[in-house]
Amino acid sequence: GEDHSYSLTNGTTSAELLRKLNEQRDIIALMEVKMKEMKSTIRQLRVSEARLREDLRERDRMLSAAVSVRKKV
Amino acid sequence: GEDHSYSLTNGTTSAELLRKLNEQRDIIALMEVKMKEMKSTIRQLRVSEARLREDLRERDRMLSAAVSVRKKV
Repeated sequence: GEDHSYSLTNGTTSAELLRKLNEQRDIIALMEVKMKEMKSTIRQLRVSEARLREDLRERDRMLSAAVSVRKKV
Repeated sequence: GEDHSYSLTNGTTSAELLRKLNEQRDIIALMEVKMKEMKSTIRQLRVSEARLREDLRERDRMLSAAVSVRKKV
């Protein structure tokens, strides 16, 4: 796609570049925190999903058993 | 915590700052892609969780019905 890279223009001082550098560093730090939170959320959801699937299998076993009992009656 | 901000040192040229700035910009772009993927994963997992909970409720209704039938027999 388009090239969004920074380039030196007349009047761009080191101080300005430095300010931008620190701004971006803060953005990266915030994004890292956000990504850690999202990773944790994904982990929790996967655990929850596994538990629900197990619950479902258990209910299906119970249903099979219930059907067997009724067939015997 | 500690301050990790960049500061001008002797010999830090604008070209070096610029190179670092573009490196950071690339890191941010990669992180944005990764975060989009994670958001999509979270959305899918939430949908899956809702469906599993609904399946579980359905099984519980079936079990209740099965128990009722057996009590009537």
